[in-house]
Amino acid sequence: MNDTIRLLQSHRSIRKFTRELVTDEMVESIISSGTSAATSSNLQGTTVIRVRKPETRDAIAILAGGQSYVSTAAAFFVWCADLHRSATACKMGGGELCAGMTEHFMIATIDVALAAQNAVVAAESLGLGICYIGGIRNDPQQVADLLQLPDQAYPVFGMCIGWPDQDPARKPRLPSAVTLKEEVYDDPDDRQQIAKYDEQMREYYRLRTGGKLDRVWSEDMSALLGKESRPHMRQFLADRGFTMR
Amino acid sequence: MNDTIRLLQSHRSIRKFTRELVTDEMVESIISSGTSAATSSNLQGTTVIRVRKPETRDAIAILAGGQSYVSTAAAFFVWCADLHRSATACKMGGGELCAGMTEHFMIATIDVALAAQNAVVAAESLGLGICYIGGIRNDPQQVADLLQLPDQAYPVFGMCIGWPDQDPARKPRLPSAVTLKEEVYDDPDDRQQIAKYDEQMREYYRLRTGGKLDRVWSEDMSALLGKESRPHMRQFLADRGFTMR
Repeated sequence: MNDTIRLLQSHRSIRKFTRELVTDEMVESIISSGTSAATSSNLQGTTVIRVRKPETRDAIAILAGGQSYVSTAAAFFVWCADLHRSATACKMGGGELCAGMTEHFMIATIDVALAAQNAVVAAESLGLGICYIGGIRNDPQQVADLLQLPDQAYPVFGMCIGWPDQDPARKPRLPSAVTLKEEVYDDPDDRQQIAKYDEQMREYYRLRTGGKLDRVWSEDMSALLGKESRPHMRQFLADRGFTMR
Repeated sequence: MNDTIRLLQSHRSIRKFTRELVTDEMVESIISSGTSAATSSNLQGTTVIRVRKPETRDAIAILAGGQSYVSTAAAFFVWCADLHRSATACKMGGGELCAGMTEHFMIATIDVALAAQNAVVAAESLGLGICYIGGIRNDPQQVADLLQLPDQAYPVFGMCIGWPDQDPARKPRLPSAVTLKEEVYDDPDDRQQIAKYDEQMREYYRLRTGGKLDRVWSEDMSALLGKESRPHMRQFLADRGFTMR
């Protein structure tokens, strides 16, 4: 255990921020930390767009399901998976993008996630709080339009960064007995562990809502996975050039 | 700038390791740091499989294109995107997995990448070196078979962790003038910046190979994107249940 590991293990999303600014130097440092992460075959498939304009942020806050902190956080970014730039490089190198490969979609998307998570660690090491905004995928076409994204680029998630004005408890996680396996995928105890975790989450929700919410993880998963989720994504991605062949 | 940011910005992949062991306590700490990362809607879509058996590691080293460090690193992991576990929870919560949604595939894959990158930072904070092994996607079905992965789970990448027995230079990255944009996607200078970066990469390759390799990033991108890449991925994912609808 060291300070970095303590930092990593104390993450929680922050959704309420003070009015204090985040300097451009901090942003530069955070984003450079992000793009220092590993990248598949040196693709560097990440483009970050910082959004400052209040009207754009308000529009995104609304389409993300009314997440007002998209407007109020000191800084807001949209993390984009970007094959447009590397396709330009490909052309400069004498090739032509072989468009629509599932593998290319994956490496660009994974690149973005690795870079974003490094940026999160950098931000949190400065005392800042962050919140990922997956809700931008509620209407990704509108986000792509607002940001004037070219073909072969799509918005993966947003990210709020700012100075925390709340101190929420850490959300419990499934134990490593479930998430870390040896040699093969083996899950005889998973149902039992999930039932145990359900009770932990019930307690977490109870404390967080002052007893108002009686809910467990299994119910969350039923709500998340038991119905179609953002069914527009397939066509949206295809329209951006990610045809998934 | 602080120690954590310095650590993040000094990442390089390590492909040569000493014989020194990594303790189980360290592994636990690294993986717990990983699963402390943000997760979409609390999906917790990450399952990590530690592979110790030499015959399994040798098989993976070969199918990954002869990456011998898969066999020689102190610890080797396969990071899996896992909807199998959450589908079990979904059932316990009264639902039934709505299979094949692109969005569900994405949140599980992104979860894995966020967790893995946190694990990388934890490992590097302990002085360990790491290398992502995207090469397991050369033959992901064989990896899935070796690890006895259930439906609704697939191997995203491998990861070697061990004590560095080399001290490679950091690979240059594209400047933030290219990767960080303001308000909208705007790229009038990108070609010029890529040309400049090409020369940086030429110098990097030259130094790394003692003058033997004369190559630039654009050529790398032409080789990576100018042809079909792992064209089996689409069908492989569909066979695992990720039909991308």
